[in-house]
Amino acid sequence: MPERLGPPRETPLFRRLALVGLGLIGSSIAHAARRQNLAGTIVAADADADVRERAQVLGLADAVHADAAEAARGADCVVLCVPVGACGVVAAAIAPVLEPGCIVSDVGSVKGAVMAAVAPHLPPGVHFVPAHPVAGTEQSGPEAGFATLFVNRWAILTPAEGTDPEAIARTRAFWEGMGSEVEIMSAPHHDLVLAITSHVPHLIAYNIVGTAADLEQVTRSEVIKFSAGGFRDFTRIAASDPTMWRDVFLNNKEAVLEMLGRFNEDLSALARAIRWDDGETLHALFSRTRTIRRGIVSEGQDAPAPDFGRPRE
Amino acid sequence: MPERLGPPRETPLFRRLALVGLGLIGSSIAHAARRQNLAGTIVAADADADVRERAQVLGLADAVHADAAEAARGADCVVLCVPVGACGVVAAAIAPVLEPGCIVSDVGSVKGAVMAAVAPHLPPGVHFVPAHPVAGTEQSGPEAGFATLFVNRWAILTPAEGTDPEAIARTRAFWEGMGSEVEIMSAPHHDLVLAITSHVPHLIAYNIVGTAADLEQVTRSEVIKFSAGGFRDFTRIAASDPTMWRDVFLNNKEAVLEMLGRFNEDLSALARAIRWDDGETLHALFSRTRTIRRGIVSEGQDAPAPDFGRPRE
Repeated sequence: MPERLGPPRETPLFRRLALVGLGLIGSSIAHAARRQNLAGTIVAADADADVRERAQVLGLADAVHADAAEAARGADCVVLCVPVGACGVVAAAIAPVLEPGCIVSDVGSVKGAVMAAVAPHLPPGVHFVPAHPVAGTEQSGPEAGFATLFVNRWAILTPAEGTDPEAIARTRAFWEGMGSEVEIMSAPHHDLVLAITSHVPHLIAYNIVGTAADLEQVTRSEVIKFSAGGFRDFTRIAASDPTMWRDVFLNNKEAVLEMLGRFNEDLSALARAIRWDDGETLHALFSRTRTIRRGIVSEGQDAPAPDFGRPRE
Repeated sequence: MPERLGPPRETPLFRRLALVGLGLIGSSIAHAARRQNLAGTIVAADADADVRERAQVLGLADAVHADAAEAARGADCVVLCVPVGACGVVAAAIAPVLEPGCIVSDVGSVKGAVMAAVAPHLPPGVHFVPAHPVAGTEQSGPEAGFATLFVNRWAILTPAEGTDPEAIARTRAFWEGMGSEVEIMSAPHHDLVLAITSHVPHLIAYNIVGTAADLEQVTRSEVIKFSAGGFRDFTRIAASDPTMWRDVFLNNKEAVLEMLGRFNEDLSALARAIRWDDGETLHALFSRTRTIRRGIVSEGQDAPAPDFGRPRE
């Protein structure tokens, strides 16, 4: 896998790229597409006036509109970078201006619900190639984006059966141009895989931070002071964007509840092992989990340095 | 709080420091005590011949023994750096050679059970000042230690009522000398605080990694590839030493099960909110948890950079 962004393209992949939504992902695409010469012109839209103003200051796009349709007009690629729950509304808004041959994509962490919400609005001749870059940080907003966010990270495409192969190939080239590896799978499988690798981890991180904040016997100041014992690792993802994550859970309900059910069964077994002094069961699990960590590090999906390589005194 | 280790002491705090156990914590104390001139002589013991040999190569101590009593003989400070479940056995082994005035301490993540296991063995005139440095990494063994592990981290002392104030003051000076801030609290309160800030986080991290490894519909390779969606944050602490953590859970059973019960209640409420499309409850929690993260960062207990400051391409 590439260690850094490769050289920029000699000719742009898209003539006019429209980004709807300039949060962490939208602004990172803007940086990366610019640096890699993936689009001749980059236009953007954001519903939030404050975000638009900050995007102008940052120079994220050649033009920044309030209206998504204004940005999508004349584009040969439109990427929806809004919370999952907003994709359908945006698709309806831009549909009238989309030209035949245009590729519409998105970056949502849920694919089944997004496809169901978006596809019905798109006119014939427009290609829908849903995408999910498995990358991010806990920071939000147009200032949070950076050009190398997608380097060495996977982007998953979930095109429906019968999608134009050329449109899929161009979407693949788009993500590869930003440094990603690309994998194609079905939307239901994506939603199951991400439920365990992303959605349930976020849910339990949010949950334990909430539990800790609510204790009567332990003060919030103590929770903060002694967080280096493990708790602080959970607080990072529990600082992620609330609207984005609310939408993820509401739109991937079945897979999340299924994976959460398995998590709970396993946790009950562990609690029982603790209660009944079953040290062998505990030790066996705690040994087994190390190999997964090794796999993640050896495949370049995390830093090998202790503490994630956190800066040290 | 200090950003790095201060200047070394002009005269050692202890004449002869004995470290029993040369894992991550024992070896880090060896490095820090040497660099800060906290002891005239540092002797160590480890039950594992391989660890002893590696410790000799690393030059961790002036002498490395197989027998804990051999190391403790003549020491004015003995620190037990073994898994919590081994503290009682080691205390019994060293008791016959301990001299009046000697300070015995430990570094266990559980304090009530360790105090109950150790105190009965210690002869009169020996001072027991239990300690817990809230610091560590996911790595284990004598090579994992480094001198700045305790810098800017809290060390909690839980001396029993009536413990010699001078012995407490010297133990405090020992940890402050290694860069820690010191807090004193009761053992039961410590065990409750750490149950939520450390023990339950480790348990649910181990648990979700196990759940993910056991899925039939999602391959282990997929879990690894797409771990950047959040899962990888959990794998770090799920790679911690299995014996140490088995002992923690078996020895802090009540507090862990109590905190786990609260975690489960809260998680059930979240699952219910997802099932019933209660986006408001989700959004309210997800907003609230950000303030805890901010507190941890502003108090210097975690890096402010996105992704913990993980090294980036």
